Formats: sequence, C-alpha cells, structure tokens
Amino acid sequence: MTAIPALADLQARYAALQGRGLKLDMTRGKPSPEQLDLSEGLAALPGNRDHRTESGEDARNYGGVQGLAEVRALFAPVLGAPPERIVVGNNSSLALMHDWIVYALLKGVPGGARPWSKEEEIRFLCPVPGYDRHFALCETYGIGMIPVPMTADGPDMDVVEREARDPRVKGMWAVPQYSNPGGETYSHATVERLARMETGAPDFRLFWDNAYALHHLTERRPQLRNVLDACAEGGHPDRAIVFASTSKVTLAGAGLAMLASSEANIRWYLAQAGKRSIGPDKLNQLRHIRFLRDKAGIDALMDGHRRLLAPKFRAVTETLGRHLGDTGVARWSEPEGGYFILLEVPEGCATRVVKLAAGCGLALTPAGATHPYGRDPQDRLLRLAPSYPSLAEVEAAAEVVATCVLLAAAESREAGGSGQVAA
Amino acid sequence: MTAIPALADLQARYAALQGRGLKLDMTRGKPSPEQLDLSEGLAALPGNRDHRTESGEDARNYGGVQGLAEVRALFAPVLGAPPERIVVGNNSSLALMHDWIVYALLKGVPGGARPWSKEEEIRFLCPVPGYDRHFALCETYGIGMIPVPMTADGPDMDVVEREARDPRVKGMWAVPQYSNPGGETYSHATVERLARMETGAPDFRLFWDNAYALHHLTERRPQLRNVLDACAEGGHPDRAIVFASTSKVTLAGAGLAMLASSEANIRWYLAQAGKRSIGPDKLNQLRHIRFLRDKAGIDALMDGHRRLLAPKFRAVTETLGRHLGDTGVARWSEPEGGYFILLEVPEGCATRVVKLAAGCGLALTPAGATHPYGRDPQDRLLRLAPSYPSLAEVEAAAEVVATCVLLAAAESREAGGSGQVAA
Repeated sequence: MTAIPALADLQARYAALQGRGLKLDMTRGKPSPEQLDLSEGLAALPGNRDHRTESGEDARNYGGVQGLAEVRALFAPVLGAPPERIVVGNNSSLALMHDWIVYALLKGVPGGARPWSKEEEIRFLCPVPGYDRHFALCETYGIGMIPVPMTADGPDMDVVEREARDPRVKGMWAVPQYSNPGGETYSHATVERLARMETGAPDFRLFWDNAYALHHLTERRPQLRNVLDACAEGGHPDRAIVFASTSKVTLAGAGLAMLASSEANIRWYLAQAGKRSIGPDKLNQLRHIRFLRDKAGIDALMDGHRRLLAPKFRAVTETLGRHLGDTGVARWSEPEGGYFILLEVPEGCATRVVKLAAGCGLALTPAGATHPYGRDPQDRLLRLAPSYPSLAEVEAAAEVVATCVLLAAAESREAGGSGQVAA
Repeated sequence: MTAIPALADLQARYAALQGRGLKLDMTRGKPSPEQLDLSEGLAALPGNRDHRTESGEDARNYGGVQGLAEVRALFAPVLGAPPERIVVGNNSSLALMHDWIVYALLKGVPGGARPWSKEEEIRFLCPVPGYDRHFALCETYGIGMIPVPMTADGPDMDVVEREARDPRVKGMWAVPQYSNPGGETYSHATVERLARMETGAPDFRLFWDNAYALHHLTERRPQLRNVLDACAEGGHPDRAIVFASTSKVTLAGAGLAMLASSEANIRWYLAQAGKRSIGPDKLNQLRHIRFLRDKAGIDALMDGHRRLLAPKFRAVTETLGRHLGDTGVARWSEPEGGYFILLEVPEGCATRVVKLAAGCGLALTPAGATHPYGRDPQDRLLRLAPSYPSLAEVEAAAEVVATCVLLAAAESREAGGSGQVAA
C-alpha cells in the first residue's frame, strides 16, 4: 500500500488546481457535440416528398399509436421481442416509464386487482447504486423504495427474492446491461431468478431499462439473457417491460423511445397511450429509418460513439490509477459499456469530494444521487460522467477528482477516520 | 316548408348511391395530403450543421423542458401569454391535457388541498356537443361528466355557474373558438363569466383547448377574449390553462403542442414534466422556427389551409341546402372556422343515418361521439369532418349524407315519428 501524501502537500496541490480557473462538468451522461455530429445527416431527413412508410401510410398525418412497423422491426433484436410486441414513441424512454407507472397507478395493470394508487402502500425494489431519475419517479408518486445492494452479477438476488414476497412490492427497477452507475451486467442466473421468483403481488412489474444495450466501450459483447423470454418460460409472461431509446444512439434531445413486453401488456399500454395521444411523431421515426437503415447502420454508428467515448473513460481510470492506485483511498469501476464510472471513496467523504471539486470549477453529480431520496447513508459513492467534456477536459477533471479524493481522505484521517475504503 | 320525397323514391335514390361503390371517410378532422404539402420544406429542416438555438444551446442534446424560447415567443400572441408562461412540448396537445390531468390526479394542483384522486368523487363540466377525446380522458380516469348545453355564445353560463358551485366539480372543458363540433366562438361575456364565477372547488381548472385559434374559414377574425387575462383580472389567476398545437398548422403527426397558464401553474407543471422527461424534441422546435419564421409565415400558411378547406365546407353546406333546405328534417352549422360541421337530424335518427351512410361506403363519426360516454340521449347530432377527402369526394359524401338523412326521416315518420328537427 502506498502512503497518501501529507495533508499540507495535498492542500497546496488543491490550491494550485484552484488557480487554474477550470470550468468542467461531469454531472450528467450527456453525449458530446462530436457524438451528436455522428448523426449529422438526420437533420435534413427524411427530406421533401419522402413521407411514405413501408405500409404506404402518410407519416405526416395523425395515427399509428404503436409506431412505424419498420422501426419496430429494426429494433426488435435490441428489445428482444417481435415487432408486434413493441411500441415506439417520442423521445425519452423515461417518459414511457413514467407513463407506464402513471397508468398503473390510475388504472391498474393486467393481473392486478385494482389501480396501484388504491393500495394502502406500494413499493419498488431499487438496486443501489442506481439511476437518480428512476428514484425521482418513485419519490414524486409516493412509491416507497427498498434498496437492494448490487453485486458483480446484478442485484443481490437473495434480498430481491425475500423482499419481493411482500405484496406491497409492485415493481423493481433494473438497468441490466452496463448498469447506471456501476457498469455491471446482470448474469444469466440473475435474470433467471428475476424471471422465476415468486412475488407477493400478482401484478409485480420489472422495469427493465436497457438504456445501454448497444453502448459498448470494448470489443466484448455481453450476452444478456432475454428477460421477456425468461419471464415467459418462468410462467410470468407479463412481468417484464423492456425500455430503450436512441437518445444515446442518434440525438439525445430528438431520439426515439421504445418499449417491449407481453401481448397483454402491450394491448393494455396502447389502450391508455391511445387516450393520451393520437400517435407519436411518425416523421421522426421515418427520419431515423432513413438515417440508420439497418442493423449494420446502427452498429457503425455505435462504433463511432465507442471511438469517442473509450479514450475518455480510459483517461479517467488511468488518471485515478496513477494518483490513487495503491493508496486504498478509493476504488472505481472500469466499465465495458454505458456512460458512467462509479467511484467509491472513504465513508463520509463523498459529499466533501463534490464540494472540493466544485471549489476547483468541476461540477460532479451530487453525492447521494446514486441512492433513493438522494441519501447515501455511508456518503461514499460518486458517479462520474466523462462523456460530454473533451478528452483534455476529462483528463483535467480526473486530476481534480483524484486530488480532491486524496485531500478528503487525508482530512478524514486527520479527523480520526480511517481515510480508507472498506475492504 | 318543402315536403320530403316519398319513402319509395328515397329508397330508390339510396339504392342508386349504393350502386356507386363509394369509399369515403368523414370521421375525423384530419388534414388532407394537400394541406400537409403546404409544410413541404419542414421535412428537410433544420438541415445539417444547423442546431443552435437563439440562446446558443445545442438543440440536439438533452435539456430544456420548457421548450425553445424562440418558439414560445412566436406563439405567445396565439396563446395570449408571455413566453415565460408558455411550455412547448412534443406533438399532441391532447397529451399535454392528459398529463395535466394525471399530475392533478396524482399530485394535486396549486391551491388544492390534496391530489384529485384522493377526493371521494370529481367531475368536469362538459359543454355538449363536444370533443370525444376530451370526454374519453374523463372516462378513462373516472372523472364524472356533467353535460352543459351549448348556445351561440358558448356554454349556457347559467348552468355552468350553478354546477360550478359543487366542490366536486374540479374542471371544465372548453374549445372556445370554432368549437368542436358546433363551430361557436365564446362571447366576451361568456369568457368573463367563466373567469369571474365562484367555484366550489378552490382548485377548479378551465381546460381551454384553443385548437382552432388560427383556423379561419372566412375573412372574419373573431376576437376571443384573452382568458388568462380575464381570469387574472377576475381574481382567479390559476384558473385557466390554454392549450394549442401546430398539428393543423404544420403536420398533424409531427407538430408541436403547447400550453400557457399562470406562473404558479407553469412552475408546478414543469416540476412534474421534468420528472417525466429531460426535455422535449428541441430539434423539431428548431425545425418549426426555421420553417414558420414569424407571424407572417404562420398567417401565410393558414391562408393556404383556408383556400383548401373553405370550398369543402361550402360543398357540404350547399349540398345539404340543396337537398334538405326547406324540409325541416335537418339543421346544420355553417362554421367560420375549425374542422367540423354539426348536423342535427330528427330525434332518434342519428344512429340510423350513420348506418345508412356506411351502407353507401361513407364512414361517419359514430352517433353519440359528441356526447359524454358516447351517448346522445336524443340520438340527433352528427359531426361531419370534410377536411380529409378531396373536394369531389366531399361533394359525393354530402349527397350521401343528404339522402340518408331524408331516408331516415321518412322511415321515422313512417314509424310514427315527426321526422322533423325540433323547432
């Protein structure tokens, strides 16, 4: 174990960083302008006099609440369901998750006895660390959150199976591949157990947010078990809803969101969605088809993203390694995909690191964001988002992070703490 | 009064129409392909390398839940509110109304004691005849509907003021200009009374669906009183929410939806909408700005719509006049804007007319669609939508309607009815 530098040295190093007048942002998983440029071309599509769908429909007019058949066909392999069990909506898969929950609260889902809002109390299982916007949906609608620890194979299934027996537990969040923020991909065994487990609520739903299905950072391709198939085989065909979007494939602010599930769930969802709107923006769907063309088109685009993203992730992990490598003051993920690096710092230090970083002009996601209600009881986890800044900025930001972690750890040790991450 | 032809003559005329093998659709207020062609140009915009908003933001990326400032500024005169009290979302104002209701049900609105779903029972006032999709939103979420008769000046305000005293009454639907389907525009006095009336519920909301704000069929321009101003002056600043969209300005399936209200309402709405999504499709907003440019651009476009629509409306009213003119078997609106003609037939005949028309290959909106729960207790009102078919088709359809009305009236008289519309 390498000793960490003396407090005074770190304070001097920190002051020097402050003097550099940086203005960096690693708060959110936003694509960089260079990534958005990969979809240049989309902005001039479909082009004039091109508005016919494959079925001959005029994409400019009303209708078609399920989305274009050709888009559903293109993304069927990504979602793991046939086109007829897919819905393509407007931008933001978060919006589709929101709507699913809202319909469940106000109408109830297939297999349920009543609307979820008519239950005394309902709860969701929340793998932790997890995605703050998932937690915010639960919080705003008064859905209790039960944290479930993450392991390298996904959520701790002993905990999940135990908690799911509670009939108040109506749902569970999952980012099954390159999990936000830890980067884990659920193992086959985890998916099988999720698909087969007994639940206290007959209308339990698994919100399978496969946001990073295509977002690899290496040449490896994890084989995520098809959760819809697993649930059907496990006797719970209506359990899982798979969500995905092109927000980090084409354009973050102008992509397509989609979901897939069982026939009964899709029928139920469309009945409600058809009350909400006469249909999604089909012209944007046509635009995407013209631009992406086919699976090869998507793959080429994702290779482009990888070439831009992988060096940024490497810059962070290498810089952290150089400064913190053998000190025991931090531990971090080296993800093979997705948008985040999870950084673990000594207990009680995460909030301090964010504050110190802000003092050097680096905005980090608030400590606690990885936990329900924004509260990390041990104040030790941080989510780093290296996608948006330039490579040079990411390198500078990682230097700042490393220095702030060392300084916070040294301060903590000075105050009687261990200044080390738990073994 | 002209006598109507003998039943046998009408049956022969009907059989002849059947023989023509028509296939016509006047069910929905869909723009025609020629109308959509007016927005040719939009499909190639904003064009490559054009993604900066006026404020310098990259419209391709996440964020901006309120919508682009320049779009809000452009539509401020239409909505009757300053840009900071406007939200621009994705397509479909119906979706914005839906979401407003859902947030009200699950969270409660400013000034309310609790979420609407926690009330024993809630109700909306529904001007009748009205818009079926409004009624469907109430029906799906279990909101009771109280029909209010329409007059030439808008809803019967004596009924509205009396019913609104009931604290269960939380809302009211309104299509204040060129009302769907009757075509009435609310008078200043009606708007003033709506703005000033006492309501039993402190969190009563007026859903002001100004869908046809720009959709004139003549040179006349009704001066609809600004409801937001009227409510503010009446001491109820949070009462009204104004909705509009470009679905019938640019593209029905790929337009922008927007809403305007008080500062408190907008803050409340954005807090919830920001949980649902990180932001709307800003690239489509930029596309619209590039295409519409300014108020003159919108006006020119709407003139184009009028040139296509007005002859179709004239064809219907003239054909009806020619066949039914002085017979007393029907009465119809001659709207100065909007998308519909309201046709009144003898009591008990509306369903029969729809069925007879279907027998000649003409699809009409189901009888009853103009009423809550799809039930017109007198079975006498029909909504005709002449926008989508070609002019020749509209003429043929109007012939069919006239013949079917005459036949249904003759049948009714044969069966002992008056075969006449009420005086």
